[in-house]
Amino acid sequence: MVDKEPLPSWNNGAPKSAILGFVERVTTDGGAEFVPPAERIATFDNDGTLCCEQPLQMQFFFLFDRVKEFAGKDPALSGRQPFKAVLEHDYSTLFGLGREALLELVFATHAGITDEEFDQFARGWLASAKHPRFDRLHKECVYRPQLELLAYLREHGFKTYIVTGSGIDFIRAFADEVYGIPREQVIGSSAKLRYDVTDRGEASLMKLPELNNFNDRDAKPLNIGLHIGRRPALVFGNSDGDLPMIRYAKSGRGPRLALLLHHDDAEREAAYDREFRLSPLAEALDKAEEYGITRVSMKRDWKEVF
Amino acid sequence: MVDKEPLPSWNNGAPKSAILGFVERVTTDGGAEFVPPAERIATFDNDGTLCCEQPLQMQFFFLFDRVKEFAGKDPALSGRQPFKAVLEHDYSTLFGLGREALLELVFATHAGITDEEFDQFARGWLASAKHPRFDRLHKECVYRPQLELLAYLREHGFKTYIVTGSGIDFIRAFADEVYGIPREQVIGSSAKLRYDVTDRGEASLMKLPELNNFNDRDAKPLNIGLHIGRRPALVFGNSDGDLPMIRYAKSGRGPRLALLLHHDDAEREAAYDREFRLSPLAEALDKAEEYGITRVSMKRDWKEVF
Repeated sequence: MVDKEPLPSWNNGAPKSAILGFVERVTTDGGAEFVPPAERIATFDNDGTLCCEQPLQMQFFFLFDRVKEFAGKDPALSGRQPFKAVLEHDYSTLFGLGREALLELVFATHAGITDEEFDQFARGWLASAKHPRFDRLHKECVYRPQLELLAYLREHGFKTYIVTGSGIDFIRAFADEVYGIPREQVIGSSAKLRYDVTDRGEASLMKLPELNNFNDRDAKPLNIGLHIGRRPALVFGNSDGDLPMIRYAKSGRGPRLALLLHHDDAEREAAYDREFRLSPLAEALDKAEEYGITRVSMKRDWKEVF
Repeated sequence: MVDKEPLPSWNNGAPKSAILGFVERVTTDGGAEFVPPAERIATFDNDGTLCCEQPLQMQFFFLFDRVKEFAGKDPALSGRQPFKAVLEHDYSTLFGLGREALLELVFATHAGITDEEFDQFARGWLASAKHPRFDRLHKECVYRPQLELLAYLREHGFKTYIVTGSGIDFIRAFADEVYGIPREQVIGSSAKLRYDVTDRGEASLMKLPELNNFNDRDAKPLNIGLHIGRRPALVFGNSDGDLPMIRYAKSGRGPRLALLLHHDDAEREAAYDREFRLSPLAEALDKAEEYGITRVSMKRDWKEVF
């Protein structure tokens, strides 16, 4: 396969060379590091790796807008936590309330409907909801260099997956349109489902207010095992939550490439790592060299961001 | 696309016509029933639908051989149930011991190793284990008409999945080689996994002696929701355990085809339905017409079986 200027939004440098060299080696039939197409699995974290997660991950904006909608119908909500904090934009209080409070918000707004109904709500929101800073739709706050990389990998026989802490149904609502990744190649956090059949014989899947799986840290490789059943050949993350899937991939025999996006570009997007409470980057940064992870600097390595 | 004599091992008749007509309608661009390739999901049960499940499903033979191997190393096992029943080939007693006893056997022989170690054991067994009646390898006791159907569907843009009550890791050990179905398109029963990292920094997934999910009946559509996130366009089963995924598929909008294999061919394979305690076919047979399910008679509709 001949590519004229692959990855045009990537600056020349160590990460771009590492990607191009890796893809060339694993796709060279007869080469020492050839990887059969069936084993060319690439897994990407979503928030902060494929799209902007500042000031909050996209699903929080969706969640908060749903809470506002619900509070409009049920004014009593505005008097009690965790709803009060959302309605008052008091995120410091909100995140101080802890995991159970966040789950209460999620279940209040994401459960009691079928997965297909949820998909409609999410698509409706995604069609018009804008990022507070970038004056573009949330679903357009995705990184151009990463879209190029996903397409480049697919052109070279890779199957591209998202492995995200965000909700599987939420990410599925735009992954195909935005990233070219089909629903079945999205692995995410999930609620339990119930199989329902109506009196008229219509079967559907009801989203329940109960966590099935929070797909972060160790859960990422565990869910890769469940959904894919292979170690990824290439893995791309941006936080400590991605470290277990990175180490799982790198522990496999044969060539593996692990990449870590470092947000060091306050001017074009954001500069953060250790102090970002929702998804910190500390251990992965400190151990990148030891674990054989290629660090990608947004500022240095990306010609364009969006 | 032009096919010269598609599905040659299928006799002409209503099921073959239903399949060919369905595939033509959903792939005719601009037609009223056109289905975009991304939505062409086909889900197949495994045991009894793609391969022989008589006198027992294939994984039982594997399980029993593993028990024998273990008893060789630990003679005390032969004195206690449920191991005793296996070693004495006393399947009536064994299945009378109930679900917990079977799970004990499964965990004793399938857990405490990584998914990759299990894969090696399963592949080793599959390479030489023969079916007691058909004088061929277990993995060769697969139905030729179904191999043709899987290939025919893929040629027409379908993504083919297995949705099985058997263990996901066991079926993955041969699905690609035998059916052309990659590991990530196998959905099955599963044990919980644990993410382990050794002192030397090597990460792996350990199979635990704890059930994650028994993928039968309602769990089939629930796991289709989790792994695929779409209703299948085509679904093929052979027992009541497949009925929920059939009804889930058929309840979707747009064209859907549901097929049910009826084992009515004692001479070439087996004749059974209601009385097969491991996986009975009763309700699905009685309700096939009401639910819009196409019944496939092995005797009448298949020119060849293996």
